[in-house]
Amino acid sequence: MAAEIIDGKAFAADVRARVAGHVAQLKGQGITPGLAVVLVGEDPASEVYVAHKHRATVEVGMASFEHKLPADTSEADLFALIDRLNADPNVHGILCQFPVPEHLSERRTVARIDPAKDVDGLSVTNAGLLATGERALVSCTPLGCLMLLRDRLGDLSGKEAVVVGRSNLFGKPMAQLLLQENCTVTMAHSRTQDLPEVCRRADILVAAVGRAEMVRGDWVKPGATVIDVGITREPHPDKPGKTRLIGDVHFESAAEAAAAITPVPGGVGPMTIACLLANTLTACCRAHGMPEPEGLTA
Amino acid sequence: MAAEIIDGKAFAADVRARVAGHVAQLKGQGITPGLAVVLVGEDPASEVYVAHKHRATVEVGMASFEHKLPADTSEADLFALIDRLNADPNVHGILCQFPVPEHLSERRTVARIDPAKDVDGLSVTNAGLLATGERALVSCTPLGCLMLLRDRLGDLSGKEAVVVGRSNLFGKPMAQLLLQENCTVTMAHSRTQDLPEVCRRADILVAAVGRAEMVRGDWVKPGATVIDVGITREPHPDKPGKTRLIGDVHFESAAEAAAAITPVPGGVGPMTIACLLANTLTACCRAHGMPEPEGLTA
Repeated sequence: MAAEIIDGKAFAADVRARVAGHVAQLKGQGITPGLAVVLVGEDPASEVYVAHKHRATVEVGMASFEHKLPADTSEADLFALIDRLNADPNVHGILCQFPVPEHLSERRTVARIDPAKDVDGLSVTNAGLLATGERALVSCTPLGCLMLLRDRLGDLSGKEAVVVGRSNLFGKPMAQLLLQENCTVTMAHSRTQDLPEVCRRADILVAAVGRAEMVRGDWVKPGATVIDVGITREPHPDKPGKTRLIGDVHFESAAEAAAAITPVPGGVGPMTIACLLANTLTACCRAHGMPEPEGLTA
Repeated sequence: MAAEIIDGKAFAADVRARVAGHVAQLKGQGITPGLAVVLVGEDPASEVYVAHKHRATVEVGMASFEHKLPADTSEADLFALIDRLNADPNVHGILCQFPVPEHLSERRTVARIDPAKDVDGLSVTNAGLLATGERALVSCTPLGCLMLLRDRLGDLSGKEAVVVGRSNLFGKPMAQLLLQENCTVTMAHSRTQDLPEVCRRADILVAAVGRAEMVRGDWVKPGATVIDVGITREPHPDKPGKTRLIGDVHFESAAEAAAAITPVPGGVGPMTIACLLANTLTACCRAHGMPEPEGLTA
């Protein structure tokens, strides 16, 4: 193995510490950044995620507002809550944990959140602001990948970046962010012909397709930086009854070629909540007309 | 010369004829699509463009509303007009001719137009809808290029497309449209290293950088389709005192390699007004809850 392993867990801890430092400063000025999380229904996985987010929010000194609504909550009641949160000056970020029950629409729910508080960066308005190079709130996982890349590579200008996967949640905003950093950006996907060859162009290879170990070592340009966003849970080969997480990249072979690579787990994953906190801090600073925290935004 | 020359003038005439056919049908149902054009000040070039648009609008049977405001119009007065046009059911498309006088903001002006009537596709909302794959109004020039490419190539799926230039007006929406057509899309620009090599990958090469004849024949993959969006006016080499228009592509050498190429003038240029009319028709159909015209939208 040649590649340096990018320790997303350690870097995320550093991001959270930096956020906590800014929060302490803001509190000194009488401002407490606040994140509201809305959960509709009792999906067990969602409960775990929400508890995680709550703990992380409190740990950096922010106010955490949890709103748990019954599974049969009407859209009108959900929207009334969102409207209250939109209007609440103590709430700087609003997140609705998905999936929502089937009678509700994720699209309409996201659209109801004030774009300036949309810390998940999922709204059409934030996608448009990002696409036109204006001040947006950027989806947390691509923002986290950008932070890892900047930390590892410094100036990204002129580098060949290939993003595999074109979801609204990740691939498209990731491509926009890399373009903003002056990379030459290729958006590849399931209909790409000769995907291995396209990947081999990349100085920066970002894989987000959700197909376990699809990207092989011979797809990786020697010396490239590889960011693996995929998470597939599969039965553990050695421990009966246990599962393990694997990424979109075949780690062992890719690490032979790459100069640096994120592992799964412990790579991109931990960055997501750290960036949610960074976005809440950013939204708070903007709401108060203060300068944005350096290094924590796109 | 090997390449077929793509006749944008003839194709634009065909688009306008198709739009006229739809307009005639709508009028049979008592609906007349209407386009409002707002001009602030007396820029001579803008006066010519607005006159052109007016003539083209009337020719396809649409209602044309011209609003000429003095150069010292306040933002409040301009916005009051836009608000009236937003509310007017006879107006389906609104376009403010740019540039506006310096005391006005293009960004704020575009943001004031109802996104559903923003037939120039310039608003943040329409950029966000396009970026997230939702029903948008798409900037006219990239939409025109897409129509030319579909007409020439049919299914674009899996093709390697390279867009050189990353403006909000053209390059970025062009890349989104090609991605939507399942191309593998590379966004290249002034910071791209080895631009000739990147261009040589392209089955579809779209140049929109505004640098006369920058793309040379040896940048073009044999058999590629080349779309030249550049327009530079320069002194005519043979006719003293006259000027001529040239594109971003060195036509003679590129035409040796390409299978098809748009000339300048007479390529992409004529498509812009045709697509403005197509967008107005689309906006009208949407406003009335009718199916969108086939082949005239993204």
